[in-house]
Amino acid sequence: MNFSSDNSYGAAPEILAALGAAAAGAVPSYGDDDVTARVTARLSGIFAREVAVYPVITGTAANSLALATLSPPHGAIFCHAESHIATDECAAPEFFTHGAKLVPLEGHGGKIAAKDIEAVLPNFQRGVHSSKPSVVSITQITELGTAYTPAEVAALAEFAHARGMTLHMDGARFANALSHLGCDAADITWRAGVDALSFGATKNGALGAEAVIFFDKDKAADFEYRRKKSGHLLSKMRFISAQLDAYLTDGLWLANAARANALARKLGEGLAAAKGVTLAHPVEGNQVFVHLPDQMVRRLREAGAHFYDWAPSADGRTLVRLVASFATPEADVTQFVELAGA
Amino acid sequence: MNFSSDNSYGAAPEILAALGAAAAGAVPSYGDDDVTARVTARLSGIFAREVAVYPVITGTAANSLALATLSPPHGAIFCHAESHIATDECAAPEFFTHGAKLVPLEGHGGKIAAKDIEAVLPNFQRGVHSSKPSVVSITQITELGTAYTPAEVAALAEFAHARGMTLHMDGARFANALSHLGCDAADITWRAGVDALSFGATKNGALGAEAVIFFDKDKAADFEYRRKKSGHLLSKMRFISAQLDAYLTDGLWLANAARANALARKLGEGLAAAKGVTLAHPVEGNQVFVHLPDQMVRRLREAGAHFYDWAPSADGRTLVRLVASFATPEADVTQFVELAGA
Amino acid sequence: MNFSSDNSYGAAPEILAALGAAAAGAVPSYGDDDVTARVTARLSGIFAREVAVYPVITGTAANSLALATLSPPHGAIFCHAESHIATDECAAPEFFTHGAKLVPLEGHGGKIAAKDIEAVLPNFQRGVHSSKPSVVSITQITELGTAYTPAEVAALAEFAHARGMTLHMDGARFANALSHLGCDAADITWRAGVDALSFGATKNGALGAEAVIFFDKDKAADFEYRRKKSGHLLSKMRFISAQLDAYLTDGLWLANAARANALARKLGEGLAAAKGVTLAHPVEGNQVFVHLPDQMVRRLREAGAHFYDWAPSADGRTLVRLVASFATPEADVTQFVELAGA
Amino acid sequence: MNFSSDNSYGAAPEILAALGAAAAGAVPSYGDDDVTARVTARLSGIFAREVAVYPVITGTAANSLALATLSPPHGAIFCHAESHIATDECAAPEFFTHGAKLVPLEGHGGKIAAKDIEAVLPNFQRGVHSSKPSVVSITQITELGTAYTPAEVAALAEFAHARGMTLHMDGARFANALSHLGCDAADITWRAGVDALSFGATKNGALGAEAVIFFDKDKAADFEYRRKKSGHLLSKMRFISAQLDAYLTDGLWLANAARANALARKLGEGLAAAKGVTLAHPVEGNQVFVHLPDQMVRRLREAGAHFYDWAPSADGRTLVRLVASFATPEADVTQFVELAGA
Repeated sequence: MNFSSDNSYGAAPEILAALGAAAAGAVPSYGDDDVTARVTARLSGIFAREVAVYPVITGTAANSLALATLSPPHGAIFCHAESHIATDECAAPEFFTHGAKLVPLEGHGGKIAAKDIEAVLPNFQRGVHSSKPSVVSITQITELGTAYTPAEVAALAEFAHARGMTLHMDGARFANALSHLGCDAADITWRAGVDALSFGATKNGALGAEAVIFFDKDKAADFEYRRKKSGHLLSKMRFISAQLDAYLTDGLWLANAARANALARKLGEGLAAAKGVTLAHPVEGNQVFVHLPDQMVRRLREAGAHFYDWAPSADGRTLVRLVASFATPEADVTQFVELAGA
Repeated sequence: MNFSSDNSYGAAPEILAALGAAAAGAVPSYGDDDVTARVTARLSGIFAREVAVYPVITGTAANSLALATLSPPHGAIFCHAESHIATDECAAPEFFTHGAKLVPLEGHGGKIAAKDIEAVLPNFQRGVHSSKPSVVSITQITELGTAYTPAEVAALAEFAHARGMTLHMDGARFANALSHLGCDAADITWRAGVDALSFGATKNGALGAEAVIFFDKDKAADFEYRRKKSGHLLSKMRFISAQLDAYLTDGLWLANAARANALARKLGEGLAAAKGVTLAHPVEGNQVFVHLPDQMVRRLREAGAHFYDWAPSADGRTLVRLVASFATPEADVTQFVELAGA
Repeated sequence: MNFSSDNSYGAAPEILAALGAAAAGAVPSYGDDDVTARVTARLSGIFAREVAVYPVITGTAANSLALATLSPPHGAIFCHAESHIATDECAAPEFFTHGAKLVPLEGHGGKIAAKDIEAVLPNFQRGVHSSKPSVVSITQITELGTAYTPAEVAALAEFAHARGMTLHMDGARFANALSHLGCDAADITWRAGVDALSFGATKNGALGAEAVIFFDKDKAADFEYRRKKSGHLLSKMRFISAQLDAYLTDGLWLANAARANALARKLGEGLAAAKGVTLAHPVEGNQVFVHLPDQMVRRLREAGAHFYDWAPSADGRTLVRLVASFATPEADVTQFVELAGA
Repeated sequence: MNFSSDNSYGAAPEILAALGAAAAGAVPSYGDDDVTARVTARLSGIFAREVAVYPVITGTAANSLALATLSPPHGAIFCHAESHIATDECAAPEFFTHGAKLVPLEGHGGKIAAKDIEAVLPNFQRGVHSSKPSVVSITQITELGTAYTPAEVAALAEFAHARGMTLHMDGARFANALSHLGCDAADITWRAGVDALSFGATKNGALGAEAVIFFDKDKAADFEYRRKKSGHLLSKMRFISAQLDAYLTDGLWLANAARANALARKLGEGLAAAKGVTLAHPVEGNQVFVHLPDQMVRRLREAGAHFYDWAPSADGRTLVRLVASFATPEADVTQFVELAGA
């Protein structure tokens, strides 16, 4: 029973198979191959718009390269205090942007809103003394398992654009969000005003494959140079692209996400029914944030369950995070819920 | 007939198979898995010494992270003027080191020697005005297809260490070098004084897998932080490690390199016998640098051959580079030589 | 009536005179001159310890260079949310450190305490995913006009050192602090555990002169290279050193600070007696933070007074900052207090 | 007899006097003062065009900030192999530009020409693998004491602009160049195609004052943010501006340069007449590069003369550099020449 991370699981068989298929023959290096071109075409279709697509191998690289393209070294980037870019990337965005300032904002359920930015904005409007407001970055599914609605995204985009800022979306769990929202990919991105998207695949079945997508190619500017200069341009690019290609074929990405989301919902509902248990946030993706009695936490761990404490125990309960993936055995979910309810 | 780069070819079947095997089950992320531990054990065995091993996905990342660990921002790094770090990585080392100075040195056959560094060293011994001599970086097989002997490496190491510098080896084609030299891996690295090695696998059969190896763990210092901060720590590390693991199993790495080297030798010998053709450098790895009559170059390209011009045509001949890989069809070599001789 | 900043006033006549005296003759460049040596000797005397002294020309340079010497690129630096390094330097520390993370902490009166750091420390103890706790930075006189006591500094130093961190003090108004505390310079710095001090002179009578002081020379490491590489090593160093030399001669630095502090106290006491006025913080240096009725604020500005609003008006009053300097005319203070009381 | 550097001498009395005059009263900080505005007006007059002017305190800062404004992190900057930015600034440009590549070019007399750049340009036109040609940087007076003519500058500018590059001029000794050329300041800068100029004053009589001048304000872009972020925005800016203001008043800058140039010419002519002496380069500014017999070098040093060896002794002679400044005593020149001829 491993619910510690969607990264703990391997890779989807369809994606593994695609690697073998891609291995044949001699093809141009560094992305000038047919598979890479096909990925761009697929994503342009999915987003109903010609998009600029740049495959990379980690979410940290995707986010940092996107932010470095959108923000000058003297820029301020507004994000949630618990966002991955602010807390889990060892200040990689500060490295890639050459010293931009990430401004951590509190916000319920992992979300930020225009009013949160507005409250601190005057601190960043003092000429050269303060970093210049440049980017708003949000995470979709948030780090607390909730999803921004198209209207919420649009409100942030409008606020950002009106002040000369751009909107970046960390979509490490973008497929889970789309599966939950049931809207078109375009509705929750460029139609709502998103300028750049870190489109994740690794957590949802790839071995290691993400794509940075710019909806306005002009904003991509010097992205390709930054990718090369940071060691993120793969010589045998076909193998990253092949993962993305298989991921986007026949709806695999949405099927995987739907499965993970369903398991998370089942976990959430099952646990919520147990005594002393309260969900901390609505389960809108594949993550469950739940307050469990400390005794229950011990019992579950003794039974072999893996998961993270999200906060230290308080009042006899611990806030834990449980993550379901495309490959989590359904039996594990059933067993976990039963153990909790016992 | 594709001789443009060893990157043009796909991946060895053994390595592809290993990915499938590694995909099963839930395992710890970020390198705390068994496969990654096994790679370190294998390399410690191969190098006859306990080594620190850090898998990454590109040679540029391997080189840049190694150099940033060895050189301060105000360091000078001495290397050949045609080295990959100096000419092919978009100044990635300068980015990772935060502004170190790469000092390009001319040297016959892609090699540098102590006397080449000595000649410019006074320029870098003027206190804080000049960058501080910190690292000597050499490439094994060099960018011109030649191999440093253990004695040559030892002489450089002695020179570097005596002046407070360390020695880095870019081993993008390390297996080809070892196959040519016929010595132990230790003889051409730490026994000769190498401090850090970029151990390449991508060009020789992996999809995308390199390892930075430190022979003295203390010198690795904060490598792991730098890898994370630059987006080069993979969550599903097992998939990079699985490539390296298969690469090192049953001598696959050396067999692949021996095959590529043999094809290159065959190319070199075949071409050298043709009229008007001269080898520019001895063929000691899987690269052939050869002066071909311009007419022959045109004829070969018209027949479908791919390769790079290394320098513009002069006196009716062009210096071209031909690269053989683990997967280059032998028939292509035969055909190419026949066309050249026709 | 200019109370907007201590930077608004010019330079002390003794310091101006010293520039003329220093201009004669040909002397070695870049700090190898006698005046610079004398400054180090003077500061070693004042701090009762042999110290390493590096003159620079701005507080931002002093702070950033000190922090870059103490923190690796992957370091976390704990500081007050309103500290100069966090809010007024356009993320210069992030630039000089190559991407360290400044962690802004709330704390009463501009001060932080061990418990404030302890509360967030677990977020920075997650291996390479989070920035590594490296430096605690405090400001003496704080940005809110209060002074750390030796005991408060010692408690922070003990906490920091026990966790492998160092303690930096931004002493842009160090003389004002010393004048208030009445202790020895050593008591509030290295005897209390401070590792590096940005020793300010600009705000207190110099044209532009600060000194970074390391109490343990070994910790200074590569400071000199960083200073040169960032363009902060002056060829005619004697002119910065001459300012510091005069500043430290015959107690000018403490006399200037005592004067500014006395004016600030007079301002604070005078205003506190006026109707509707409340001091926000005790006046322990040369800054006064005070809630003034909005009507009074308007009246004072109409009469020609210059000062900053520190926060927007709330409940009919505005928190303003008033700064007195070594050169503020006492009549201005008298007039301001009278106008407020009218 | 100190001919080691123009930095060895102090400051012009007119400039020292201006500091005292500027010290009075309370004025806005950070450059919003009248003196700073006056400097911009003066320079706009001198250059016969409205220019953007940014005072800083060192030549390294001026050059690095100008280059970082003109070049992206992935840019290539072409310069002479002996230029100050390439050899004397501890790779500061690489730090400020975040890793741009300085491309050192050989060229007679310290000058580069379009053909020198053209010869290496193909190495920088290989997509993202090589740094992108962005800036050509020349030094006026060159590091070898020669001056570019307007026609030479124009040819470089035309070459650069035609390839999407800009032209930067390091004018650490700009006044000396102008004095030699006898043309208008505009003729040798923007009329010849220069985009940005590091306008030096320190070597020619200031304590520490340079100005970065952009002839097209749009190209200045985010210069002000970069200056602040690197700690180079002075709070009491009036004291840098006052130096520049006095420097530009009543032709002081040109008078000082004319004096230094005349002394250098006298040195050069006097030495050239001595036995065994050869000038290495024409004396066009205030520097003399001359081959002196080793015996003569010893004799001069024994007599108390200070100067630098520019290259190690060869064939019994040493190439030395002698620099005259605005304040070098004429008697020292006379004595030096007499000693040489004795």
